[in-house]
Amino acid sequence: MQLFFHHIQAKVHDVFQLDAEESRHLIKVLRKKIGDEVQVTNGKGQLLECEVNTENPKKAQLKVIRLVDKPKQRDYYLHVYIAPTKTNDRFEFFLEKATEIGIDEITPLVCEHSERKKIKLVRYQKIIVSAMKQSLQFHLPKLNDLTLFSEALQQSKTGENYVAHCEEEKQKKLLFSELNSAPGKRINILIGPEGDFSPSEINLAKSYDFTPVSLGKNRLRTETAGIFAVQQVATKFES
Amino acid sequence: MQLFFHHIQAKVHDVFQLDAEESRHLIKVLRKKIGDEVQVTNGKGQLLECEVNTENPKKAQLKVIRLVDKPKQRDYYLHVYIAPTKTNDRFEFFLEKATEIGIDEITPLVCEHSERKKIKLVRYQKIIVSAMKQSLQFHLPKLNDLTLFSEALQQSKTGENYVAHCEEEKQKKLLFSELNSAPGKRINILIGPEGDFSPSEINLAKSYDFTPVSLGKNRLRTETAGIFAVQQVATKFES
Repeated sequence: MQLFFHHIQAKVHDVFQLDAEESRHLIKVLRKKIGDEVQVTNGKGQLLECEVNTENPKKAQLKVIRLVDKPKQRDYYLHVYIAPTKTNDRFEFFLEKATEIGIDEITPLVCEHSERKKIKLVRYQKIIVSAMKQSLQFHLPKLNDLTLFSEALQQSKTGENYVAHCEEEKQKKLLFSELNSAPGKRINILIGPEGDFSPSEINLAKSYDFTPVSLGKNRLRTETAGIFAVQQVATKFES
Repeated sequence: MQLFFHHIQAKVHDVFQLDAEESRHLIKVLRKKIGDEVQVTNGKGQLLECEVNTENPKKAQLKVIRLVDKPKQRDYYLHVYIAPTKTNDRFEFFLEKATEIGIDEITPLVCEHSERKKIKLVRYQKIIVSAMKQSLQFHLPKLNDLTLFSEALQQSKTGENYVAHCEEEKQKKLLFSELNSAPGKRINILIGPEGDFSPSEINLAKSYDFTPVSLGKNRLRTETAGIFAVQQVATKFES
């Protein structure tokens, strides 16, 4: 199965146009013809079963034949706050892997030790869409704009809050052991930059009720820490 | 702390020479001078505390001052058999992340559906060394040469054997749930190529006592499946 994406809240019989990239892929690469069936998701939990209406390789039109609701397969809401890495590839890899494994919201952070203070939001959005389609999911994770660490903390949050950092701390347990897998949980996790959160950032997070957690014994790169956290949440809720 | 690597079984007072790349990094980038302290690992569980003996940026010499044994921090042996991906970057990312999180042996596989039948062993080895140093570990994972699926199965194996595949199967549980975390365990995991193992490969693996396992509900790319498996083992043994 090959999934396409269109940001649409459609009804049966609606006709809509794929963007240039998706059109090219559909008509030039997959060589679909008028009347062929195509699967599209709107990233909002719907599968749109469509047929090709026009074969234009720049603006292919599709007609909606059937709508299928696709509820989330996971019973939690995971929001990761993470400082983008100096090397852009590494952060993009995090976005792809987190989406494949299962995440609901991502907030790129600016921290005291941040090396990257500008991000490519449009490009990041494309990576997330592509990973959603590739892993046959129907819910697009929400990607927020770059946010200051202190502002992120001030946003109101419900659920369980964790801050993953590398400073030595006696009571720090593994994220996996701290997690509570009751259905419907909201989980917020802060992942620090290369060079970690500063001691004052860690204290600020604690004052906002973020529980310090470890991600194991090894020193992990930022993007590995992010992927590892997403995996531990997925493993906790599935096992 | 910054770790250097040299393939050496050294004694105190031994003098040895770093390779060209490590020499350049030590002398040109970090600007170390004669008498400065440097930490080196041999990837065999030893930390060599050294001092700079010559400042040559192509062949820096170091003198061993102290030897510190660094036992593995994990009490299991993990061997992952995995088919390299068509896009080389993705497989290299697996090598880096698996090493960071914790792995002991990697065998690149040739399967029926393999898209890549040639690999860059020297380059892969460098990535593993670099990830070991970066994550401050002292044990270098063993990287084997490309191996046919059927030959990999014929190699004698002790411990627990798992095959992660995407075919629907009734009894298939999550790897994490199947794992037994008794200390000292050897764990062998087969990860299929893009396009999965063929049904006859899955049957062959079962005939060699490999238990089929799932890595969750989403369709994961090969390299994501590999990283996810390594993470599930780490989490099982640490939690």
